[in-house]
Amino acid sequence: MPDFTVPLSSYTEKYRYKYLALFHALRSAIHDGTLPEGTRLPSTRELAEMYGLSRGSVSQAYEMLLAEGYVRTTVGSGTFVTGVLGKAPESAAATAQMTLSPWGSRMVAAMQQSGDAAEGLANTPAPAAAEALISFRDSGPREALFPSAEWKSALAWVARSKHGAHAAAAADPAGDRELRAAIAAHLRRSRGISADAEQICLFNGSMQAITLLTQLLLGEGEPAVLEDPCYYGITRAVSACGGVAVPAQLDGEGMVPRDFVARLLFVTPGRQFPTGVVLSPARRRELLAWAARRNAVIVEDDYDSEFRWSGRPLEPLKALDRDERVVYIGSFSKTMFAALRVGYAVLPRSLIRPVTLAKALYEPAPPAHQEQQALARFMLTGGYERHLRRMRRHYGAMQAALRQGLEQEIGDLFELRPADSGLLVYALWRRSPEEFQAFREAAYARGVVFRNAEIYRQTPGPPAACFGFAHLDKNALYEGISRLKEAWKDIQVTRV
Amino acid sequence: MPDFTVPLSSYTEKYRYKYLALFHALRSAIHDGTLPEGTRLPSTRELAEMYGLSRGSVSQAYEMLLAEGYVRTTVGSGTFVTGVLGKAPESAAATAQMTLSPWGSRMVAAMQQSGDAAEGLANTPAPAAAEALISFRDSGPREALFPSAEWKSALAWVARSKHGAHAAAAADPAGDRELRAAIAAHLRRSRGISADAEQICLFNGSMQAITLLTQLLLGEGEPAVLEDPCYYGITRAVSACGGVAVPAQLDGEGMVPRDFVARLLFVTPGRQFPTGVVLSPARRRELLAWAARRNAVIVEDDYDSEFRWSGRPLEPLKALDRDERVVYIGSFSKTMFAALRVGYAVLPRSLIRPVTLAKALYEPAPPAHQEQQALARFMLTGGYERHLRRMRRHYGAMQAALRQGLEQEIGDLFELRPADSGLLVYALWRRSPEEFQAFREAAYARGVVFRNAEIYRQTPGPPAACFGFAHLDKNALYEGISRLKEAWKDIQVTRV
Repeated sequence: MPDFTVPLSSYTEKYRYKYLALFHALRSAIHDGTLPEGTRLPSTRELAEMYGLSRGSVSQAYEMLLAEGYVRTTVGSGTFVTGVLGKAPESAAATAQMTLSPWGSRMVAAMQQSGDAAEGLANTPAPAAAEALISFRDSGPREALFPSAEWKSALAWVARSKHGAHAAAAADPAGDRELRAAIAAHLRRSRGISADAEQICLFNGSMQAITLLTQLLLGEGEPAVLEDPCYYGITRAVSACGGVAVPAQLDGEGMVPRDFVARLLFVTPGRQFPTGVVLSPARRRELLAWAARRNAVIVEDDYDSEFRWSGRPLEPLKALDRDERVVYIGSFSKTMFAALRVGYAVLPRSLIRPVTLAKALYEPAPPAHQEQQALARFMLTGGYERHLRRMRRHYGAMQAALRQGLEQEIGDLFELRPADSGLLVYALWRRSPEEFQAFREAAYARGVVFRNAEIYRQTPGPPAACFGFAHLDKNALYEGISRLKEAWKDIQVTRV
Repeated sequence: MPDFTVPLSSYTEKYRYKYLALFHALRSAIHDGTLPEGTRLPSTRELAEMYGLSRGSVSQAYEMLLAEGYVRTTVGSGTFVTGVLGKAPESAAATAQMTLSPWGSRMVAAMQQSGDAAEGLANTPAPAAAEALISFRDSGPREALFPSAEWKSALAWVARSKHGAHAAAAADPAGDRELRAAIAAHLRRSRGISADAEQICLFNGSMQAITLLTQLLLGEGEPAVLEDPCYYGITRAVSACGGVAVPAQLDGEGMVPRDFVARLLFVTPGRQFPTGVVLSPARRRELLAWAARRNAVIVEDDYDSEFRWSGRPLEPLKALDRDERVVYIGSFSKTMFAALRVGYAVLPRSLIRPVTLAKALYEPAPPAHQEQQALARFMLTGGYERHLRRMRRHYGAMQAALRQGLEQEIGDLFELRPADSGLLVYALWRRSPEEFQAFREAAYARGVVFRNAEIYRQTPGPPAACFGFAHLDKNALYEGISRLKEAWKDIQVTRV
């Protein structure tokens, strides 16, 4: 079979695994007609010899082609290209259109109108491929600095111990008991929250907690109070339930309390998302008094409290929550690593049972139980505290570098808002909305992006940006700032 | 001010920050009357000196006491305890009762009226503690036979490779791409389903898939067709949405089709849950024709198809699904180990986007991503197929032993229903409902339990039981059967 050839080498650079490289090389060759319909592919042994691959890799690639309908096998005679003609073009989709439930329609609309989808860079040309994009959109963590060896040893400890399988069979839908106890201890020590393990329910990240709580508490047509701006995940959760978002204004003391006619309120007291304002003690008291008067639940999202640069932390609302109206939400995705989807809620006692049942409806046993156990181990052995201390120093330096760099290079474009904690810098645009859009596009063309804070807003407001830095190293940080400066120059030149 | 003292040291162990320790020490002292109303607190400078604290820490603690109303300040004269008279005591727990949303109320009711809660052994005395309970309630898997070494090496491979963290950052809410491709290949090979990775969405177990699909497709007051009996998880999902469960009768060919006025239908064609009936080819065609006529979605839960004892498997409905109306649901929790919460759905193309968005609302990135990657590896290297083959032999022998044992020892009590696959034996009770209840209680007292199949039923029917065996070893199996026999004797003696 000497006439058979695929440009494998150009794919091996792109794909880490040989079978994936081969699969993509073959698929492209089928798509572009190099391997027309009816072509008999070499046997796995022949192809393995031709390209110095293992037979296993070739079989794997063939099976994937088979799975996707690009080839068919005939017993005794071999593997043949079916071509792309027989494959239903994905776009033609003359398939049935399903009618969604009201929840389904609201959810789809909310997901499409918010988040990245709402950021509006879709029509902007992408930067030259050669230049790697520097993104200030993310907000952590820097995974290269994560103590993976220590984490792996915690995972290995769980795998060795009798824990794993057996404990899981009888697992609590609220999540691993030891992790909940470790979180309770951590919250008591570092945040002044007195909660026991029973009050803590684990979730697959904080959005699962926010969505389920909203579903549990908010009926169709009912109002929920949201900070304006706020995280779009909350807006989505409220919209999916058919709830009515009531935007609450912000000022220098955080959310401005009013006698909201509502029974659910979301707030980020420790560091308002995304503006960074800290909710003042007086406002905290007012919100708690409001909740008592209205028999309301306050959901306190303490998404970013572990990293503090200056000032002293105020106690969370939850620590002042005498009559149990506050749900406190935290997460490990920013402090550990992004793939660790572990969030939690500290629940008022009256909500423990409904929340646990809601979780159990979707997940009778929690996923990632071994990771939960490893995280408990990591916390109980002091690994988590040590890691936080190290990262606090590192992120503190990065935050200072970012602020200084932005002020120095493009301080005439942005007014950086103060923040005494957190992995985001919020910056108000000093010029016109048109210039903001032009600047974002020019920056993108230069290979640098940042968040348009408009996606967090419920009511119109002046342009603003969010700069996340935690995932970057210093070189990328400075390079990103320098590209921003160049991008501004690009616009000035264009205009001349 | 020598007479002023608070037990600060006992709080510094408990709280990470000195100001928090001081705040809690002072607050407790106010609560327990050590610092009665009207007490003048030392100045911040005095207290800082007395306890070796910074003045900042003392100010912070005072500010928090002030914020919570425990003290008041009078300009020029100092800080005074206001007392706790006005404040609600923490323990009295006259805590708020929260009003749930209609979804919340329905969900709580559904969870409390179904599942184990509905089995009604709660008032039966527990067996003597010395004797370990033998449970025929579970339905697998036997984790002692799981190839943990091979699994750990797959996990270790993931940990070593660059995969883990980086891939996860950009993770698809539908789950790990390679695992979805591996599942597509497995389904093509073993179930005759042609689906590509795009059509597969991963879930944290099959209940998450069932609940989200129901939510997406079923509006309040709308009917959904369910087999009667069926898995209570489906009933719960329908009830939580406010849907109306329409029970479909079963006969020897499985679900009896009618022209159901509905747009959503749940069915277990491969092995009806829990009765074990196989849906006949004619019925399969009828259901597909019904779905086309009604523009309906059929959810096919293939929960137990990997283990087959006799006969040839019929192709799943999904394999016959020309115009894309069938959602196929599968899971690894029974074939791998219970703590691995990985289920999946093969989606009609028109549902890919709404389902993925629904998943992303709750979980913008999927949990347990490393486990998903390890499972992909385990499948791609052939480990999964090898494990299935071994377990098929083992469970086949266990199933035969259970049937033989039950028939021999208590064949006059139960009529065992035939089943050509699966990890459950369904058995009809041959006597009165009263004797069934008495027998269940006597068995429990002897230290053996089985499922009362009534919990799966929507309309009343004759007593029946489910015996799961996969998790037991042979000794436990025989001991369990022998206890059942003894339990029956116990009742006869009582009656004499």
